[in-house]
Amino acid sequence: MKMDRAALTAFLARDFAQVAAQFAVESVEGGRLVLRLRVAEMHLRPGGTVSGPAMFGLADVAIYLAILSEIGAVAQAVTTGASIDFLRRPEAGADLLAETRLLKLGRRLAVGEALLFSEGQAAPVARASMTYSIPPGAAQGAAPA
Amino acid sequence: MKMDRAALTAFLARDFAQVAAQFAVESVEGGRLVLRLRVAEMHLRPGGTVSGPAMFGLADVAIYLAILSEIGAVAQAVTTGASIDFLRRPEAGADLLAETRLLKLGRRLAVGEALLFSEGQAAPVARASMTYSIPPGAAQGAAPA
Amino acid sequence: MKMDRAALTAFLARDFAQVAAQFAVESVEGGRLVLRLRVAEMHLRPGGTVSGPAMFGLADVAIYLAILSEIGAVAQAVTTGASIDFLRRPEAGADLLAETRLLKLGRRLAVGEALLFSEGQAAPVARASMTYSIPPGAAQGAAPA
Amino acid sequence: MKMDRAALTAFLARDFAQVAAQFAVESVEGGRLVLRLRVAEMHLRPGGTVSGPAMFGLADVAIYLAILSEIGAVAQAVTTGASIDFLRRPEAGADLLAETRLLKLGRRLAVGEALLFSEGQAAPVARASMTYSIPPGAAQGAAPA
Repeated sequence: MKMDRAALTAFLARDFAQVAAQFAVESVEGGRLVLRLRVAEMHLRPGGTVSGPAMFGLADVAIYLAILSEIGAVAQAVTTGASIDFLRRPEAGADLLAETRLLKLGRRLAVGEALLFSEGQAAPVARASMTYSIPPGAAQGAAPA
Repeated sequence: MKMDRAALTAFLARDFAQVAAQFAVESVEGGRLVLRLRVAEMHLRPGGTVSGPAMFGLADVAIYLAILSEIGAVAQAVTTGASIDFLRRPEAGADLLAETRLLKLGRRLAVGEALLFSEGQAAPVARASMTYSIPPGAAQGAAPA
Repeated sequence: MKMDRAALTAFLARDFAQVAAQFAVESVEGGRLVLRLRVAEMHLRPGGTVSGPAMFGLADVAIYLAILSEIGAVAQAVTTGASIDFLRRPEAGADLLAETRLLKLGRRLAVGEALLFSEGQAAPVARASMTYSIPPGAAQGAAPA
Repeated sequence: MKMDRAALTAFLARDFAQVAAQFAVESVEGGRLVLRLRVAEMHLRPGGTVSGPAMFGLADVAIYLAILSEIGAVAQAVTTGASIDFLRRPEAGADLLAETRLLKLGRRLAVGEALLFSEGQAAPVARASMTYSIPPGAAQGAAPA
């Protein structure tokens, strides 16, 4: 592991200052990271449910941080593609938790996925997979854990 | 066409009050809708580029409104799945425009896609396709234009 | 569980006679199914690697059978959408195994995912997620295992 | 244009000998290519409809050839990700036609999409988007047409 929970939290605060306060890194180990979205008014749609873009953003930040935990701080990795399935309506008034799994850490591309849950619920509210382009020379081609 | 530009604008203001001010329906005709994202500080990432979640949200709202333009106001249609490719970095300081195309308007599922552009640029910054579940009895199975 | 390994194998032979001989259900339990693709000349691309369409087909059949194992034989469920990431080149000369996980078993839509492996390898060669439309009256809305 | 219809047809016959006879390049111009799938028994599912993997393969070959038409013969470009929506049941007994559009031709990644039609029908049976990794030094970063 190149970056632990404290290092990722510091990275988030420095490089993603606009959104850092919305998130909390709960745990990270072997590419498996749990990220909390502190659900607030700005994330909600009519009826009190969390919006699709807020869920997309949670998955994106979670998988991105999981990759950094393995390859180190690479500020210029960019999301090149994503797919997301919305499975159930999130619980009103509950935070969302994203749980990641890394599938590929190549020299040029990294791929990870996340399941999103309303806190305290067993059934996922969404599934996402995301691909990131790694700038030349940045990654070590480490095998995913 | 069941809802024109004025009707969609009113729908957006009433049913999506939290985000309506960020968007403007530029035109709509035969399922082809152009939606503007008025890019502001809240949509930006470091470097002044528009964030992934903001682009995802633009595509989602644009395709959703394009579907409503054909089947009428159905507040309970929900996004069930989406895929998005990020193609180029958006221009700093420019609004984004989404141009939609409807591919299927079934009784149960509707599918559409959007290309996103920085205003004034010819090359798209992103491509998205989205699937919506239509509540029973809401849609007319009209053929996409 | 509505259909066990023997029932799924019989279903495959009867309803998918064209392709049944290519596959073998290795195990199934709680929506987690392992399906083998008996790799043959017809699945290969230049260099001896398994083709993309063959991997797509393996994931599709595996997730479909996993859904049937939970809701029973529904011959008219149709794939409505899919996303797939190709992660590594499959091993030449090795069968492929798909391992599924069900994410949603609703009345109208079912969603599952699969990881694909070259037999004997720990790192996945592909990841796929697929959505199926369930005909009215067919499913029981059972919670995914 | 680096490769015209004749050059692409020769490439297909040489580098994809296993599947070349199933396809015919109908036209190509500015990254817009039309590829025919000569539907035969091997592509069918029960009921006489074209299978999902056959449609996936058609889209993959079509977009791949469209990219080669712009950047020249690059045998080692590999598909890294794809999403596909199945929109309608293909017509029994009709060939399928894929119509492509290129969205990005970068130094490292190329992205294209395709609509698939049953010959003679106006409504698409499927939509697909695909991403390809371009080997270093192979592409020219030409702008998509």
